[in-house]
Amino acid sequence: MQTAITPTRKDNYPQWYQEVIIAADLAQLSPVRGCMIINPWGYAIWEKIQRNLDDEIKARDHENIYCPLLMPLSHIERESEHIDGFAKECAVVTHSKLKKNDDGNLVPASPLEEPLIIRPTSEMIIGDVFAQRIQSHRDLPVLLNQWANIMRWEMRTRMFLRTSEFLWQEGHTAHANANEAQQHSQEMLQCYYTFCKDYLAIPVVTGEKSKNEKFPGAEITYTIEAIMQDKKALQMGTSHYLGQTFSKSCQIQFQDANKKLQYAYTTSWGVTTRLIGGLIMTHADDDGLICPPNIAPYQVVIIPIYKKDQPSDQLLSYCKKIQKSVQSKSFKHAKIRVKVDMKNKKHGEKKWSWVKKGVPIRIEVGQKELENQSVCLSLRIEDTRTKHQLSEAELLNEVESLLNKTHDELYQRASARLEDGACPLLESSEAVREHFCTENPSPALIYWCDNDKIEQQLQDDYKVSIRCYPDAHIFPHPTESKSLFDGQKKGRLALIAKAY
Amino acid sequence: MQTAITPTRKDNYPQWYQEVIIAADLAQLSPVRGCMIINPWGYAIWEKIQRNLDDEIKARDHENIYCPLLMPLSHIERESEHIDGFAKECAVVTHSKLKKNDDGNLVPASPLEEPLIIRPTSEMIIGDVFAQRIQSHRDLPVLLNQWANIMRWEMRTRMFLRTSEFLWQEGHTAHANANEAQQHSQEMLQCYYTFCKDYLAIPVVTGEKSKNEKFPGAEITYTIEAIMQDKKALQMGTSHYLGQTFSKSCQIQFQDANKKLQYAYTTSWGVTTRLIGGLIMTHADDDGLICPPNIAPYQVVIIPIYKKDQPSDQLLSYCKKIQKSVQSKSFKHAKIRVKVDMKNKKHGEKKWSWVKKGVPIRIEVGQKELENQSVCLSLRIEDTRTKHQLSEAELLNEVESLLNKTHDELYQRASARLEDGACPLLESSEAVREHFCTENPSPALIYWCDNDKIEQQLQDDYKVSIRCYPDAHIFPHPTESKSLFDGQKKGRLALIAKAY
Repeated sequence: MQTAITPTRKDNYPQWYQEVIIAADLAQLSPVRGCMIINPWGYAIWEKIQRNLDDEIKARDHENIYCPLLMPLSHIERESEHIDGFAKECAVVTHSKLKKNDDGNLVPASPLEEPLIIRPTSEMIIGDVFAQRIQSHRDLPVLLNQWANIMRWEMRTRMFLRTSEFLWQEGHTAHANANEAQQHSQEMLQCYYTFCKDYLAIPVVTGEKSKNEKFPGAEITYTIEAIMQDKKALQMGTSHYLGQTFSKSCQIQFQDANKKLQYAYTTSWGVTTRLIGGLIMTHADDDGLICPPNIAPYQVVIIPIYKKDQPSDQLLSYCKKIQKSVQSKSFKHAKIRVKVDMKNKKHGEKKWSWVKKGVPIRIEVGQKELENQSVCLSLRIEDTRTKHQLSEAELLNEVESLLNKTHDELYQRASARLEDGACPLLESSEAVREHFCTENPSPALIYWCDNDKIEQQLQDDYKVSIRCYPDAHIFPHPTESKSLFDGQKKGRLALIAKAY
Repeated sequence: MQTAITPTRKDNYPQWYQEVIIAADLAQLSPVRGCMIINPWGYAIWEKIQRNLDDEIKARDHENIYCPLLMPLSHIERESEHIDGFAKECAVVTHSKLKKNDDGNLVPASPLEEPLIIRPTSEMIIGDVFAQRIQSHRDLPVLLNQWANIMRWEMRTRMFLRTSEFLWQEGHTAHANANEAQQHSQEMLQCYYTFCKDYLAIPVVTGEKSKNEKFPGAEITYTIEAIMQDKKALQMGTSHYLGQTFSKSCQIQFQDANKKLQYAYTTSWGVTTRLIGGLIMTHADDDGLICPPNIAPYQVVIIPIYKKDQPSDQLLSYCKKIQKSVQSKSFKHAKIRVKVDMKNKKHGEKKWSWVKKGVPIRIEVGQKELENQSVCLSLRIEDTRTKHQLSEAELLNEVESLLNKTHDELYQRASARLEDGACPLLESSEAVREHFCTENPSPALIYWCDNDKIEQQLQDDYKVSIRCYPDAHIFPHPTESKSLFDGQKKGRLALIAKAY
């Protein structure tokens, strides 16, 4: 059977991924290496992610702010572990003008007294905001968030998954005690878990990162990990309990109830445009993207079918009537988003463009449907040749449940990759070798205790990494047992996988 | 009478402006010269501006995209007039790493092969997007918009009005012919005019910029100009008809209906976080900001009044009951936004914080109001001592009209600065001298034809500039007459003023 995307997932998964991005008009490469242009359909998906997640963040009492893009070197240098973690990928601004040289070429001019870096993250500058806003324990907690662009000079880039510039949300909070701060970072991880489940239809494993994978400056990094169709893991978001690291380097202090000066405890947490990469690799198929209904820019598209250059007035007004009636129905507390595709293009071309973009429900309306006051409906989760004839009344009755069905179906398909047996427990190094030397190995579980040398060895031998120590309820194994590689030590149950 | 802001507008207008920003918690200076941190209340206002204007832009069929922050020098160099206009204020990225030098200090490392500039605007990169998306006349028009941060290295900065980094919206469109493109740039100017009127309660003069004030690369720049309380003009937004300048440098070509290759015609238009500066200087008074209801993060705040450490349960639930019932009412198609201020602070302190933040309606509820099931209401546009006792039913009946009244009152106050006689027509150079040598001169009108030398002279002598050629209907004078300074030439009616 012919597919809209060439190559297919089976033939060449990485290439298939790039082709889906082009076919669905999600993004394109830009003249700056490693930076992408996010096209209308890709950005519309990001806006849906952004608005819905923003509502969830605000519902938890956070306020949005905006901090500067640039930071003086001296400023970020105050926290050495942190800057060591980012020094190798910092874009540095050194001049504030351009001038023409003798050859007539533009060259940098007006060197700055102190170089500035483009933010790779904003802990150090939001630390100053905290220091200024916090005097007394009555000012705590302070719960902030920002939506911003971030720059990390990556060597190997791939659109959405790893780009030198990306868009993200970064939450930053300050608390009066360690316990409250740590709980808050876990609460926000839970917020991400629910968001992935309810909006992206992506099941994720929540857990704690191993020592080597911690954020530079964090005491604990929590993570959500999803398993893609090629069985590789993708880190979808992180939440950090930062302890007093940043409050000490940024002087975030408050007077407690006994008038004693204390350092605050902080957290930070973020998700990025990488979520769209995860969306593609979780839900797309050999015909293109499939959008989960909650973040689909349009949930329903109506395509008028006609032979002449223009649709008849009757056909057009029938399409608009259906649009209006479907728009009056709700899905998850929001009006259903419906587009009538009036582009001056061939009908097959239009149909396939919406298949590739992944709109959940396509409706075709021609002369026959006009006469019968019916519609011809296709679901993106079904085979592209499957069609359903529905009366207008049936459509209105069923549209909400068809969107629900789409969401549930996508979530089920993705969940199969995490179900019993999909992540086997490996109990010997022999078992590890056998498992990861197969083609496209699934993630697995081992009992692990931090060991830099073995971690590097696993990376070198099998290209796998410790993804996280999953939360207790997720897998049917005890969270602690004898460590696999250091038999004399206790190990924690760890998810190990190839990863993006 | 004591005021919340010191100094007052009369005593020191520029200093008053800075103090309002601090008192209302809108923004603060950052460690990078000329860049500000936008605090929660300021950012919440920006979000209201952004969401509402975004709806207006989308209602006109534009789609949002996101283009990279950085551009290679060779890329922007293709359009010489454009780059000449921005070369003096470009932040230049020259390195992609940091390393420690022998003294242990961080220094830039890994020089880039080609320097990159941080976008001062995005015409050149969106030109490439157009070139890629446009092949045939059937692809036109292409209507794009992006929300982004921008960097222009300014020498004299002032929060919101002129900052090295600012946030903005930049629309970019491509059309098949000159007429359609020019009309589109005017239509978007009209969109800004209506937005300022309906959302910001700011009357603006629409018009065309003089030759010297055109955007680098534009054929025509349209502008909206508002008059602040100190009678200086503020450019609130611009819309450019770019002709074929950028389509020629970026190769934006299409096949017309006769299969002939043509260059497209483009436009661009933007408004920035400067709108918040305009909001402050238009509506704030000696007690702080006054928010027009449409962009007020909260339109109503409820302050419980009690003597003990905690309000009684009855008082608290009465406050929440009022919050809920007011929230169920609408203002301009959106639910009214109501906050109950439960902060553990003194009641006077809370009241003044909301006065300074400019919430349109304050409601105080104490034991007496609880017993009478009433509220004590104050309007921000009235004297802070004026209070109204209303029953709960009266409150619900009147809240919408009180918000309308606030909007209208703010618009009326600002309009007075543009009414008959507020901008006199000056018909001799003597009259110009007399008018602009007074303290705080109002804007004025003259008949003007482009003349670089006299324009510079006016700037040197009176610190005034040609703001625009206002649209015909705005002032009661013919749009053309004998030029004031070049008597033998025809002049166009021009608005001349001191400006920010």
